Amino acid sequence: MPNKNIHTFIGCDSEYDVSKIVVFGAPYDCTTSYRPGARFASSAIRNESYGIETYSPYLDKDLTDIRVFDGGDLELNFGNPERALHDIEAFADKIIADGKMPFMIGGEHLVTLGAVKAAVKKYPSLHIIHFDAHMDMRDDYLGEKFSHATVMRRCLDIVGDNKIFQFGIRSGDRKEFYEAKGHIETCKFNFSALEETIGKLTDKPVYLTIDLDVLDPGEFPGTGTPEAGGVSFKELLAAIEKVAKLNIVGLDMNELSPVYDQSGVSTALACNLVRELLLQLYK
Amino acid sequence: MPNKNIHTFIGCDSEYDVSKIVVFGAPYDCTTSYRPGARFASSAIRNESYGIETYSPYLDKDLTDIRVFDGGDLELNFGNPERALHDIEAFADKIIADGKMPFMIGGEHLVTLGAVKAAVKKYPSLHIIHFDAHMDMRDDYLGEKFSHATVMRRCLDIVGDNKIFQFGIRSGDRKEFYEAKGHIETCKFNFSALEETIGKLTDKPVYLTIDLDVLDPGEFPGTGTPEAGGVSFKELLAAIEKVAKLNIVGLDMNELSPVYDQSGVSTALACNLVRELLLQLYK
Amino acid sequence: MPNKNIHTFIGCDSEYDVSKIVVFGAPYDCTTSYRPGARFASSAIRNESYGIETYSPYLDKDLTDIRVFDGGDLELNFGNPERALHDIEAFADKIIADGKMPFMIGGEHLVTLGAVKAAVKKYPSLHIIHFDAHMDMRDDYLGEKFSHATVMRRCLDIVGDNKIFQFGIRSGDRKEFYEAKGHIETCKFNFSALEETIGKLTDKPVYLTIDLDVLDPGEFPGTGTPEAGGVSFKELLAAIEKVAKLNIVGLDMNELSPVYDQSGVSTALACNLVRELLLQLYK
Amino acid sequence: MPNKNIHTFIGCDSEYDVSKIVVFGAPYDCTTSYRPGARFASSAIRNESYGIETYSPYLDKDLTDIRVFDGGDLELNFGNPERALHDIEAFADKIIADGKMPFMIGGEHLVTLGAVKAAVKKYPSLHIIHFDAHMDMRDDYLGEKFSHATVMRRCLDIVGDNKIFQFGIRSGDRKEFYEAKGHIETCKFNFSALEETIGKLTDKPVYLTIDLDVLDPGEFPGTGTPEAGGVSFKELLAAIEKVAKLNIVGLDMNELSPVYDQSGVSTALACNLVRELLLQLYK
Amino acid sequence: MPNKNIHTFIGCDSEYDVSKIVVFGAPYDCTTSYRPGARFASSAIRNESYGIETYSPYLDKDLTDIRVFDGGDLELNFGNPERALHDIEAFADKIIADGKMPFMIGGEHLVTLGAVKAAVKKYPSLHIIHFDAHMDMRDDYLGEKFSHATVMRRCLDIVGDNKIFQFGIRSGDRKEFYEAKGHIETCKFNFSALEETIGKLTDKPVYLTIDLDVLDPGEFPGTGTPEAGGVSFKELLAAIEKVAKLNIVGLDMNELSPVYDQSGVSTALACNLVRELLLQLYK
Amino acid sequence: MPNKNIHTFIGCDSEYDVSKIVVFGAPYDCTTSYRPGARFASSAIRNESYGIETYSPYLDKDLTDIRVFDGGDLELNFGNPERALHDIEAFADKIIADGKMPFMIGGEHLVTLGAVKAAVKKYPSLHIIHFDAHMDMRDDYLGEKFSHATVMRRCLDIVGDNKIFQFGIRSGDRKEFYEAKGHIETCKFNFSALEETIGKLTDKPVYLTIDLDVLDPGEFPGTGTPEAGGVSFKELLAAIEKVAKLNIVGLDMNELSPVYDQSGVSTALACNLVRELLLQLYK
Repeated sequence: MPNKNIHTFIGCDSEYDVSKIVVFGAPYDCTTSYRPGARFASSAIRNESYGIETYSPYLDKDLTDIRVFDGGDLELNFGNPERALHDIEAFADKIIADGKMPFMIGGEHLVTLGAVKAAVKKYPSLHIIHFDAHMDMRDDYLGEKFSHATVMRRCLDIVGDNKIFQFGIRSGDRKEFYEAKGHIETCKFNFSALEETIGKLTDKPVYLTIDLDVLDPGEFPGTGTPEAGGVSFKELLAAIEKVAKLNIVGLDMNELSPVYDQSGVSTALACNLVRELLLQLYK
Repeated sequence: MPNKNIHTFIGCDSEYDVSKIVVFGAPYDCTTSYRPGARFASSAIRNESYGIETYSPYLDKDLTDIRVFDGGDLELNFGNPERALHDIEAFADKIIADGKMPFMIGGEHLVTLGAVKAAVKKYPSLHIIHFDAHMDMRDDYLGEKFSHATVMRRCLDIVGDNKIFQFGIRSGDRKEFYEAKGHIETCKFNFSALEETIGKLTDKPVYLTIDLDVLDPGEFPGTGTPEAGGVSFKELLAAIEKVAKLNIVGLDMNELSPVYDQSGVSTALACNLVRELLLQLYK
Repeated sequence: MPNKNIHTFIGCDSEYDVSKIVVFGAPYDCTTSYRPGARFASSAIRNESYGIETYSPYLDKDLTDIRVFDGGDLELNFGNPERALHDIEAFADKIIADGKMPFMIGGEHLVTLGAVKAAVKKYPSLHIIHFDAHMDMRDDYLGEKFSHATVMRRCLDIVGDNKIFQFGIRSGDRKEFYEAKGHIETCKFNFSALEETIGKLTDKPVYLTIDLDVLDPGEFPGTGTPEAGGVSFKELLAAIEKVAKLNIVGLDMNELSPVYDQSGVSTALACNLVRELLLQLYK
Repeated sequence: MPNKNIHTFIGCDSEYDVSKIVVFGAPYDCTTSYRPGARFASSAIRNESYGIETYSPYLDKDLTDIRVFDGGDLELNFGNPERALHDIEAFADKIIADGKMPFMIGGEHLVTLGAVKAAVKKYPSLHIIHFDAHMDMRDDYLGEKFSHATVMRRCLDIVGDNKIFQFGIRSGDRKEFYEAKGHIETCKFNFSALEETIGKLTDKPVYLTIDLDVLDPGEFPGTGTPEAGGVSFKELLAAIEKVAKLNIVGLDMNELSPVYDQSGVSTALACNLVRELLLQLYK
Repeated sequence: MPNKNIHTFIGCDSEYDVSKIVVFGAPYDCTTSYRPGARFASSAIRNESYGIETYSPYLDKDLTDIRVFDGGDLELNFGNPERALHDIEAFADKIIADGKMPFMIGGEHLVTLGAVKAAVKKYPSLHIIHFDAHMDMRDDYLGEKFSHATVMRRCLDIVGDNKIFQFGIRSGDRKEFYEAKGHIETCKFNFSALEETIGKLTDKPVYLTIDLDVLDPGEFPGTGTPEAGGVSFKELLAAIEKVAKLNIVGLDMNELSPVYDQSGVSTALACNLVRELLLQLYK
Repeated sequence: MPNKNIHTFIGCDSEYDVSKIVVFGAPYDCTTSYRPGARFASSAIRNESYGIETYSPYLDKDLTDIRVFDGGDLELNFGNPERALHDIEAFADKIIADGKMPFMIGGEHLVTLGAVKAAVKKYPSLHIIHFDAHMDMRDDYLGEKFSHATVMRRCLDIVGDNKIFQFGIRSGDRKEFYEAKGHIETCKFNFSALEETIGKLTDKPVYLTIDLDVLDPGEFPGTGTPEAGGVSFKELLAAIEKVAKLNIVGLDMNELSPVYDQSGVSTALACNLVRELLLQLYK
């Protein structure tokens, strides 16, 4: 009898019970202030993942050797960020409670807040490694507290000072840069301070959040706020390899906007990145 | 001395005080559930209006003969529909208080609610003529009361039964269609009942809201939820000509999404429509 | 426990056993001679179907009331048409053997041949109603017998003379037009002869094949060989309503090419068409 | 020995000497005031013509039965309209002197002036039938006498009053409309006056100029200044059929802008139109 | 009372009188020989500048601290390069006479000639630093003296030998390269000779002209003649930092063609570049 | 008398007899498993080549100094890879028999097999240098022996062990990587082993096959299976310079897919590459 059409990221078709990592989409972009469309990212990544291989020649590992469950996309409301964050948190709570690692695919960057809230309940000393072109440290954005532009400030509210480490930052309001000093560590433009950060975080529970616009728009045009002067895919892979030595307890990847990815190269890159992240972080 | 760069819809460069119609943009699309982008419509329409003429060969009238003020775009927050609606209402209040007609360019259809709220305060017996492919009569959408999909239901809450007349409708939830009966009048697919409606509304204050997806996607592809089987531009012009005989006290035009208008034909059509509406309704 | 991500055309989530219609994709376009890309159609239609409603205001029926199984896409080889056709035929055989109606979504038009082969085994007196811009009646195309340009000729080989009725045809080699006379009935440009055909086919088993390029490219740009002067969506709906009175035993819809549907209107139209076909043919 | 790669419009590969019609491209668009790109039209039409058939089911005629020479594209300068017009005129002179009919593919509409100048030398009583959305009757455009927006005014200067008949016009400056009265005949929006015009022009030498933006942008999006409310391809074909009864001594087709034809439907339509024009006018 | 809609590059909203730099657009591209569209650049840059921040993390400076006037776009004719150049020159004359620095945003590269003519009147010993992929040193192009392909040759005519320094050049006619020797200095492919040039130009009045196609098309696809092998944004920023030490008396940035910038990354990069140039050159 | 329109790659207009290199297109992509469209590459490259110069500032050489014949595109069937390969082989046989070097422009990578078959007949000790992101070493792909994904395995069948040298490889099935060991030499990610390979191949007849997806998708987005982390254009040029010292007896360049090259940068890069290859290899 024909099977129902189960649709997962390539190679992520294990059962929930036996999986150590749970991939899921958070298709939300309602606070995006410039060019929306990140809501379509998780679906696009799933679709286009069939254009890549399950094998990584970088790592000589294969997705067919590990156990990952893809839970599909959450059904989130539109226009009410707090409720959407609540739904994300609830799903991440479940995954973490079951001893698995949540790997959320946004959506806009605000979705990170839901997963961080879940992670910090289990890991009160949670640290965050943050790759991004933008600080996202505004206290409010046009009066709103919950926004892609405030997400790291809200995370700071939760995890506290000296727990957030940013890399690749090259855009922000002046006030964000000035106010952030002393509360978080910001490595502008690149990953030059990453080794040092890795040294500090040994044995700490770490959440990794990757805003894909950390990449140079030449390699990754498909994002809402492209910011010239970014890092390369090769540099990002190298940074991930380093981060993977830490105790990563959750992660997300966000801000792919397929409508601005006419050639498809951004989505393809994101697919490769999901594979490399899964193979690096699966233990 | 060089002048500052004042940017208006073509021919709408009169001073506020002497203008009878006030055009303004409401670049909001945060509750859009499918394909966002309508936030860019008012800016795109203003930019592309320089590709059309100020003269209408349909009406033998010219924008240079009338007085219209273009107030630019409101700066609306992202992610908080109620506050955005409040800001729209406040601006429309001002226009109406000054004895002028507001002509709002959305944005998503939800923005209509702000302008209707303003209009109904001045005109308690306000009626609404609504051109759209979609009913927009849900009571809530994924739990949210304020949404592009609920906007006419919210308008119904305000203006009361038998005051809303829909035309061109060809999409909706079954519940919307069933529940709407007896409260509003729905003319499916076309304008066949328009003459009759016109007859009923003589001397009534009427608000006109045009969701541009009432048009056939062949002629108007650039919209978030294209719905095959729509009306033609010529049919829409003819309908507007009829409606213009009524006492129109406010109007809006919404749901152009320039990111899905790669060829630019939808934006160009919208520009023509703004001109025809201004020339028809200016009295 | 979270569910696996089952991905179907909207509203087509019934179990196989209880379903009367089985939707499946045949993502094949390897003989496409001009602009390929139809291989992506079934996936795109499934994805974008969530932008339409399950309810049809045309029919006052709802997909939630009927039982349809979506089997996903067949995995077909590339570059060997006969083997691909064999796999399609095998799947259609199974559906027909189980007493269900196959509704195949191409892919290029050649895929029809696989399903017709299956249908004719069960219904030896099978007739075919064929909506298309192109005759597809070449005996070979650049030497190949199995091609999108020969598919109806191959169907003729199987069902025999006076069993195929074409509508909307407006392109072909002169030889195709001349040689087809006396073997099939061709209604050029429109559906003017459809009533007459319906009359002839009462009680006959009929296979319906819709090449979407029968539609005017203005309404349906996303196809490999757009041919100006086509029928409208409204005309096509009306034709389908007539055909639905016959004893339809299988059907397909093909030649959407999403890469040429930048605005998405073609895919959205195809989604509406799938809904209307399901609601019309479900009995 | 392998042949050089000769590239013509499909089926137009006859030798110059034996051909009655000479197709050539005039890839010029330097006075285009809005969206340029028509310079790429003739090349695009030649390339994409291999997607259509040489046989017309409308006329039951085939390009393989007639003799047409395709001379490729003229090499025109950029930025000097008068010199470009001179080069066009010289080439058209040659064709007309050799007793053949020039069929020029623009380029912007200004190119018509070069061919009309050539035609009027041979046929002093030349009349012009003009299909267009725009009047093109300005006396100058931003100070320039030679512009796509002035081309019909310049033609009027040459052929004199009561020789130009416009159809489909729906855009222009008010002054253009008012000043044109009494000098040319303008049929707004459609072809309703065409029969009458045909009656007047029997036995007159007629030049036919088709600005493709006369078509509705829904069917023909790929043009620099799309203007809603145009004629359909079917209406245009019918109009051409009528015009073909006259003594056509030259023609052109212009203002396809392939960069705004992302789906390719406009270019495909233009190819069909070239075929139908050739088959209609070849005698 | 609502304000008129003043539209400037972000942060460039000072009054003319108090500003030291005057930004203006020169939307001209009529001599572009390959892919036109640069006419839309200045408008696109102004629109999209609201997607970037006013603060530069590179320089720790903010546009809100400096005074820049944005005069909007010049209204230039189409098809008459000399008149367009005259209008540009007149506007630049005014700015320079008022003791301000002109910052022109093209348009095609030819527009540079107008501003250079103005600058050389005030600064007879004007030197030019020229970043470009192309030499632009033809004496004429298809017979025309005024063309994007001849602009630096025309500048050479004005400023004389040994005053023009080119960087990043990787395309040109052989004759251009050979004839330029001894008259200008050409640094092929990169900025390797820039330090040396800076040393030579201390205390000289320098005009900086940046053809954005000096950038690699991977980072900057939106240009008319993309030429592989270009410099990176980071390299360009570093070069600008060096040039900013000189006595810059005027500058321009040209050849963004938004129609070829589907993803928007080129326009976003150009916006960043405008900000960095303003902050570097404001003194 | 006007000439027929001969259409070649820029500067490749010599007669066959006197030419040393023969360029031709193999517009085949029927086994492409992911995103088709490479069939349009040779035509696009020919069209767009007029946007580049014939002169190389890298080499100080000019296409006008060498003799190259462009034979246009082969007319290949659709859907029968073996017959297409046969036709390619026959044409390459002719070129090689005439003492010329074939330079084939694909099409998908499978076309290489036809040319290699021809070359190995003349040069039994043929070696292959292979630049690609993908191994293409599967023994079959979904059951098919002839596929873009198996092409190098088929070449291995013909030339034998230790004759194939791959560079830039970063994608493949695990089995491909493991099975290839000992039979071919694979340099992953870059050209680091190229010098060593060059040393081994002195005096050997070498066929060069370049799958353009070896380039980074940031610089070359227009390809069917973009794979992040590729080489740069500058690195590729440097590699070609090294390879050019060997005895190259034939070459091809493939997998440009113009439909995914919306900005045109990939096609422009490919044009530059054709010029550099011709100037490097012409002896």
